[in-house]
Amino acid sequence: MFYFVTGNKNKFKEVREIFKPLKIKQASIHIDEIQSFNLNEICKAKVLQAYSRLKKPLFVEDVSLEINALNKFPGPFIKWVEETISNKGILKLLEGKTNRKAIAKAMVCFYDGKRLRFFQGILKGKIALKEKGKGWGFDPIFIPDGKNKTIAELGYKWKNKNSHRFKAHSALKKYLTTQESFCNS
Amino acid sequence: MFYFVTGNKNKFKEVREIFKPLKIKQASIHIDEIQSFNLNEICKAKVLQAYSRLKKPLFVEDVSLEINALNKFPGPFIKWVEETISNKGILKLLEGKTNRKAIAKAMVCFYDGKRLRFFQGILKGKIALKEKGKGWGFDPIFIPDGKNKTIAELGYKWKNKNSHRFKAHSALKKYLTTQESFCNS
Repeated sequence: MFYFVTGNKNKFKEVREIFKPLKIKQASIHIDEIQSFNLNEICKAKVLQAYSRLKKPLFVEDVSLEINALNKFPGPFIKWVEETISNKGILKLLEGKTNRKAIAKAMVCFYDGKRLRFFQGILKGKIALKEKGKGWGFDPIFIPDGKNKTIAELGYKWKNKNSHRFKAHSALKKYLTTQESFCNS
Repeated sequence: MFYFVTGNKNKFKEVREIFKPLKIKQASIHIDEIQSFNLNEICKAKVLQAYSRLKKPLFVEDVSLEINALNKFPGPFIKWVEETISNKGILKLLEGKTNRKAIAKAMVCFYDGKRLRFFQGILKGKIALKEKGKGWGFDPIFIPDGKNKTIAELGYKWKNKNSHRFKAHSALKKYLTTQESFCNS
């Protein structure tokens, strides 16, 4: 059994689907995250801290939204940005900008006391002109490349087969079943 | 001898002045900061980590800029905001807002292996309509209450007798000389 360390129910729901038929459990313990623009660093510190408490094979995830015209803001601080200025703040910062390119990254880090493995999933796209569709986080403002709808409009089914989160966790799932390592999808 | 743990030369210069005639040294070691909106939590984690490495009486500082109309954004994440969207981004977010109230907070935390003490300094004010004066961080956009100039325009001398940083470090200085504790100025 593998534990996914997160306090976020939405994340756990998405990730549980991805891992089927493998079973995972949610470990809803609070882990401090370090302030950094480096997802690997954040995940490594988080997974080691979680393991030192649970002592069971587990993985953590962290997400970054890097907006080209904003020098990669908000990056891994997306959670705090959503809780304060929200998607409306991000749209405000991009008013008048023609370059709306953005990259969503998910980093998954697995540790079982011996093996420390990182799996990154990337979704390229752009920031919409306004919020569209119902979804959490930046789903209502992120339009994946090749689409003309936001992740929120594309819906849960699309998201959970194509998102940065899907790619990262799928790579871990593959590793756990085949032992094939470092994937950068 | 007391050590101020910071990699920021500007901060050290300001703080060295405040402590005179007490002498302090700069300990320029890298300490991870945790992601939180709670300055006490951030400083506590930082000072304990620093002490575990240096094993000498030391103190750390963290600053937060809480903007009323932005749900306290950017808070303790001000450093990352300055490095990405900068003061111009903050001004953009406030475009059209009549409430420009903000609070600058500095939290200083001292630890010598036994005594763990917190000292907070607060400066109330508002965010200017545009950048004015030469200074670092948010000095060019912060107008203290009772003034009509930004901290940057008021200048280094004014800043180092009145700022949130001055208040917090002065309280620690007083504690170190008189043993009077918890100050919330």
